[in-house]
Amino acid sequence: MRDELFIRGNIPMTKSEVRAVSLSKLEPEPDSIVYDIGAGTGSVSVEAALMVPRGQVYAFEQKPEGCELIAQNAAKFGIRNLTIVSGKAPETLRGLPHPDRVFIGGTGGNMPDILDYLLQNNSGLKIVLNVITLESLNQAVSYINERNLQAEIISLQVSKAEKIGSYHMLRGQNPIYIITIH
Amino acid sequence: MRDELFIRGNIPMTKSEVRAVSLSKLEPEPDSIVYDIGAGTGSVSVEAALMVPRGQVYAFEQKPEGCELIAQNAAKFGIRNLTIVSGKAPETLRGLPHPDRVFIGGTGGNMPDILDYLLQNNSGLKIVLNVITLESLNQAVSYINERNLQAEIISLQVSKAEKIGSYHMLRGQNPIYIITIH
Amino acid sequence: MRDELFIRGNIPMTKSEVRAVSLSKLEPEPDSIVYDIGAGTGSVSVEAALMVPRGQVYAFEQKPEGCELIAQNAAKFGIRNLTIVSGKAPETLRGLPHPDRVFIGGTGGNMPDILDYLLQNNSGLKIVLNVITLESLNQAVSYINERNLQAEIISLQVSKAEKIGSYHMLRGQNPIYIITIH
Amino acid sequence: MRDELFIRGNIPMTKSEVRAVSLSKLEPEPDSIVYDIGAGTGSVSVEAALMVPRGQVYAFEQKPEGCELIAQNAAKFGIRNLTIVSGKAPETLRGLPHPDRVFIGGTGGNMPDILDYLLQNNSGLKIVLNVITLESLNQAVSYINERNLQAEIISLQVSKAEKIGSYHMLRGQNPIYIITIH
Repeated sequence: MRDELFIRGNIPMTKSEVRAVSLSKLEPEPDSIVYDIGAGTGSVSVEAALMVPRGQVYAFEQKPEGCELIAQNAAKFGIRNLTIVSGKAPETLRGLPHPDRVFIGGTGGNMPDILDYLLQNNSGLKIVLNVITLESLNQAVSYINERNLQAEIISLQVSKAEKIGSYHMLRGQNPIYIITIH
Repeated sequence: MRDELFIRGNIPMTKSEVRAVSLSKLEPEPDSIVYDIGAGTGSVSVEAALMVPRGQVYAFEQKPEGCELIAQNAAKFGIRNLTIVSGKAPETLRGLPHPDRVFIGGTGGNMPDILDYLLQNNSGLKIVLNVITLESLNQAVSYINERNLQAEIISLQVSKAEKIGSYHMLRGQNPIYIITIH
Repeated sequence: MRDELFIRGNIPMTKSEVRAVSLSKLEPEPDSIVYDIGAGTGSVSVEAALMVPRGQVYAFEQKPEGCELIAQNAAKFGIRNLTIVSGKAPETLRGLPHPDRVFIGGTGGNMPDILDYLLQNNSGLKIVLNVITLESLNQAVSYINERNLQAEIISLQVSKAEKIGSYHMLRGQNPIYIITIH
Repeated sequence: MRDELFIRGNIPMTKSEVRAVSLSKLEPEPDSIVYDIGAGTGSVSVEAALMVPRGQVYAFEQKPEGCELIAQNAAKFGIRNLTIVSGKAPETLRGLPHPDRVFIGGTGGNMPDILDYLLQNNSGLKIVLNVITLESLNQAVSYINERNLQAEIISLQVSKAEKIGSYHMLRGQNPIYIITIH
């Protein structure tokens, strides 16, 4: 879905191309339980919710402003299978139904704890991470190597043409790492 | 969907990341009539068919080997709303139901004729092109500029980590231009 | 040389990585006659002048503000083998010593005329173009194909880490096409 | 300098664009002492030697085949200010004149030891690293962060057009990280 369909505020939003590739890697089933950790504006949560009509999406977000935006976007798209959980993961994950699909857009510095919690008793779990800093990339790669996990790591770089007078000029967007653990 | 799910043969196949972004740009509705021109292995046709349960996909492909692969992939995924049309576009397009969504993966050198045919009497039509040569990019950009069309042009470059011993090394894939006309 | 060494004003400047690759493709000899067409701030002219101690660089620039900056940068680096030519190419090229190396950073829409003039009676000439719009890329590729010229075409994309708190985040720069005709 | 000018054998060679950017970041002075650690075919050593006519380049390489290639390339270009040191760094660095410029193309897994040795008593030292694996990137970024070093980190991705019949198709090369410590 196009970025401009979402209500955004000042919270950073996953770009449409990154969202498309990430959700394609996530491969949710119609009845999947999906966690969206660091849900931001909820753009991934909303698209995921539409992909799991008989499933449920849990959107975890620390910032109150983010939780408010997720609620607004869910309402805008008439989403009924989305639960917003405010607070800091992994604490907020406890006691909820186990997921079979997890998208992690941000971890607030808690990546190993969150991954530990998710991986402890979940076979068949698929996790997709979006990573934009070299330090988080390091953390993810070290985690994968230390536990000898199967993972696909890609770097995605999009440039988008901008019209300058009668010319199209390519504007580079920031590269992002998309990591799939399965 | 992952590339390895498809039967491939020797026909070049759109990579999963490019397919995900292209279909996301195409935004098919559940009842859309979708054309897949230069359908190759049918990977886009199959994914599109799953996205339009009440619609229909027409896969246009010149090569008999390609048509055979599309049929095999459609059968593998139990697709029932996909029609394979053998031969050279735009001739093969005539007489079929008008599409509201068109994906063009290849034009066999006939891009302007195909676009002319598609755009002549279709309001509300959305077209997504995948372009890998500078000459086809040239043709598409010139076409867009001459007719003053609204278009989004992006360049997408994916690098994928390959495991070399205990190291992950990023391998660059070929960049592709994804052009959306609407 | 680092970008911050140059006086810049409001004129767009070739970035250091692009300058390094472009000058490496240009392969000037110590006694080369180098043209820098669309010289902007003169950053390429200055670096080229340092590479041709027994040669001469001609910096062609339309904008008076650009010519002034080139003069300032030449003075800053103590360059003595650099001639600034104000006005619009290809007219301004006439009557000057024939070059063996030409860098083209901008053509003011006159690319075919400039290339025609340069290529008419120059064997052994090497030309490097920097191109940032799809329309100029088209013009260059069409020119190369129509005249069946030998050319190398690369796309260069640089991302640079920016420090955000204690994290390094990669920022995508705009991709550029570097075309070498020889 | 173009890649095809060098004798290569089976040793991986830094590509010309990466070499150009790396040497531009290294900014050697005419009298610099340059170390090239993990010198491979010697392409960086040779270009650096030409840039420091009153200086000296030390090429450190573990593989005998590499040392032989460096010698051949030095001879081919008539280089006289290049010393080849066989063996494993940092041991091989000891007792040699202190460098003011160091290029590191490979560390054989010894990056922190090599950096520790180089940085212990060298003010004004500039180091440029080329890194292609995520694990080495991790090591470099961690090293920089732990010691609070000033560093520039870029990712460079080149695509090169290949002629397929009468079409130019961009082929993606592998991305590389170029890290400058100063």
